[in-house]
Amino acid sequence: MFTFRRPKVRLEVPRLRPRNEAAQVPRISLAELTPELLPYLGQAAYIQLSLFESLSRVVIDAPTVAFKQDLGPAAGQALDKHQRLVAAIRREVDDPAAIMQPFAAAIDAYREVITGANWYESLASIYVSAGILDDFFELLAAGLPGGASPQIVHILDADSGRSAIATILTDAIAADPRLGSQLAMWARRIVGDTILITRSAVHLTGNSQSDEQKMEPVLTEVIAAHTRRMDGLGLTA
Amino acid sequence: MFTFRRPKVRLEVPRLRPRNEAAQVPRISLAELTPELLPYLGQAAYIQLSLFESLSRVVIDAPTVAFKQDLGPAAGQALDKHQRLVAAIRREVDDPAAIMQPFAAAIDAYREVITGANWYESLASIYVSAGILDDFFELLAAGLPGGASPQIVHILDADSGRSAIATILTDAIAADPRLGSQLAMWARRIVGDTILITRSAVHLTGNSQSDEQKMEPVLTEVIAAHTRRMDGLGLTA
Repeated sequence: MFTFRRPKVRLEVPRLRPRNEAAQVPRISLAELTPELLPYLGQAAYIQLSLFESLSRVVIDAPTVAFKQDLGPAAGQALDKHQRLVAAIRREVDDPAAIMQPFAAAIDAYREVITGANWYESLASIYVSAGILDDFFELLAAGLPGGASPQIVHILDADSGRSAIATILTDAIAADPRLGSQLAMWARRIVGDTILITRSAVHLTGNSQSDEQKMEPVLTEVIAAHTRRMDGLGLTA
Repeated sequence: MFTFRRPKVRLEVPRLRPRNEAAQVPRISLAELTPELLPYLGQAAYIQLSLFESLSRVVIDAPTVAFKQDLGPAAGQALDKHQRLVAAIRREVDDPAAIMQPFAAAIDAYREVITGANWYESLASIYVSAGILDDFFELLAAGLPGGASPQIVHILDADSGRSAIATILTDAIAADPRLGSQLAMWARRIVGDTILITRSAVHLTGNSQSDEQKMEPVLTEVIAAHTRRMDGLGLTA
């Protein structure tokens, strides 16, 4: 779906921390794509709230008490990211809900779409979605004005309890290869919907050729990190 | 349903912090009622997990983004209490899930029973349930062996985001007196089910007269605190 092509330019923005490998990932520029601070924060905060809600559902529906307990901290981390982003909004304006509101309908719809037909699909959705969106918003933060960027990157860079999710998925896939095929197929569907959310987050010029050129290296990097996460689960992205 | 009768004895255990008033609440003894450390922690931890799940549902179903944001921290606090209690279990044994498991079915059933017919009923349930159960387990902690008690009281004594819940309920009741009557009636139903959970948590001798004598002052104090919270909402308990 996306090819891993190495852009020729090296610009000044930070790259994502490589996760579980030392691969060199190219530095890319996102400043022109980053929206104004408040819409950026509003959408990022609502995405974390939505991830929290999805994680709460998998905690509620978890088939065992042990899974509930393993996944609770992941829900807590998404909530913590939400609250820190809300605090950042509140430093600018009094009503964070008004800043998040414009993004609520699209993200609520997205959350419904990525709700799986069963518990493992829903868990895989969260793993795919949180991975891509956290990485994307972290890259996008590089274009934020003033001193906002390092603080936001620090908020989004927290682990998100992903290791607990990965362990549960890896164990289940190892025990049932058919589940692995099913989740690999499901994850591919989720990626498309998730990329749509990333597109809605950027400031586009309306010149589609130019916009594509700017987005491509970002998506290439984000998808490469996603592919590594799928590899880690034993799935083909 | 329960009368507020002042026991004649003053023993050594701490009383609940008076909430919003300086009423003198009698000190009561619970040492004989407190179960062994691990079952105590297992039930308390699972109750907090269950409260977290209920709070997550009201966040998910909240009618406005502002309510979602107000209630998120309450969910986070219940989860935090759960995780700290799990950490206390882990200091004793390797498998906290096994310690919580025996309580899962009864508490899951209780959570279903207290799920309201609408969003405000569910929110009121959480307010009633978290208030009574946190207070009760806090009092019960006084009977724990060794140095466990102060640490557990410290965990349970956190505010639980109750002020955010109280504000939402108070505003809604003030705006719609019919809702107030409905919630007052609903809260009375919830109290009975919640008291059943407290009874399942204590170590009873089987001598029902003696057991009632021990339980009564505890329940009196817990219900008095509950009544003050209902008064605070403008409801008759």
